[in-house]
Amino acid sequence: MSSVPTIRRHSERARTDTDELHAILDAGSVGVLCTVAGGQPLAVPLLYGRDEDRILLHGSTGAGALRAAAERAPVAFCVTHLDGIVVADSLFESSANYRSAVVHGVARALEGEAAEQAVVALSDRIIPGRSEEVRRSSRKELAATLVLELPIVAGQWTAKVRSGPPAAGDTGPGGPLEAEGPMWVGVVRLRTVAGPLEPAPWVPTDMPPPPSVTKLINGG
Amino acid sequence: MSSVPTIRRHSERARTDTDELHAILDAGSVGVLCTVAGGQPLAVPLLYGRDEDRILLHGSTGAGALRAAAERAPVAFCVTHLDGIVVADSLFESSANYRSAVVHGVARALEGEAAEQAVVALSDRIIPGRSEEVRRSSRKELAATLVLELPIVAGQWTAKVRSGPPAAGDTGPGGPLEAEGPMWVGVVRLRTVAGPLEPAPWVPTDMPPPPSVTKLINGG
Repeated sequence: MSSVPTIRRHSERARTDTDELHAILDAGSVGVLCTVAGGQPLAVPLLYGRDEDRILLHGSTGAGALRAAAERAPVAFCVTHLDGIVVADSLFESSANYRSAVVHGVARALEGEAAEQAVVALSDRIIPGRSEEVRRSSRKELAATLVLELPIVAGQWTAKVRSGPPAAGDTGPGGPLEAEGPMWVGVVRLRTVAGPLEPAPWVPTDMPPPPSVTKLINGG
Repeated sequence: MSSVPTIRRHSERARTDTDELHAILDAGSVGVLCTVAGGQPLAVPLLYGRDEDRILLHGSTGAGALRAAAERAPVAFCVTHLDGIVVADSLFESSANYRSAVVHGVARALEGEAAEQAVVALSDRIIPGRSEEVRRSSRKELAATLVLELPIVAGQWTAKVRSGPPAAGDTGPGGPLEAEGPMWVGVVRLRTVAGPLEPAPWVPTDMPPPPSVTKLINGG
């Protein structure tokens, strides 16, 4: 098993509840798969989906980091949501609001029916309902796809959250310059917005998008 | 030097022009630092800024992955922008539009004036102009901050971009089911929006934000 570093700094930001980990993972659809090959770090961004207590990943059978992971190299899978830029009254206290998780472990390549089910589950995390609107994957397509599951194991993950205003710093409550009056400090919120839709050029302009896509746009 | 994997799959997505790498790096402010300690992968999301031909990183002197990188462990720094969900007529052709870069190398810890300049440059990448609105960092603050530069070296990075509509698949131009008429396929664009501003609770409600923050919100 890989050794998971303890969160020493800003330990008040650590989250240890599995539900909180799940919430962070479920809020995203792209993460970074980090692994090791020949002593060197490899990193690749990948779409992912959480299914119960595993993270599902897939990609081409030609992708280096994914293949190393399929060959049981230890991995760290990192998901980050940048929620805001924290503007403080000094550079030192400036920061970011974020939710992040790193899941350590060893992944396993799935085959046959397990691989097909995982491809469907992964799709349903990214575009809920889409898998029922399209045909099943062919045997040839599945053979060209590397499907991995990374188990989420207690003690093998870390999650961290920062939220809220900047530290009081120099000019806020209790700061050495409080008497001089406040400076403007606060948070610039960042959020991801879905839309507009861009139909492929060969799709008639009056053709409505499928229910799965409409739901995705409406935040459902 | 670390060995950088060649992009074998979807090589049409590879970008080899340094300007394109810079554009991808400059479009973001958070990336994932991957490194290796004791044969195990470590990953941590970090704010960053590109300054000429180096990536600047900083964090607490207590942070594990950052400290490993400061101790010259090989790193891969990964930046990803998820630009859209590509909705195809099969799960196999479903994909994402993205811009991503992975910079490999060995980082170097900066000290003294070089560290202070780097902290300013990093701040100016994330909130342009902010460093001139606040005081200089104190010696104590700098001592508590680990500042790293990761050189961007030719041959030591990869960049990948996918954009545009889904593949024609079964129902698009030239597909086996084209005669049956098209299905709706296309892209759900995703973008990051800055705002609203959330002033800290002790800031008077009528106090205007500083110019740097106003510019950030207005996309300047």
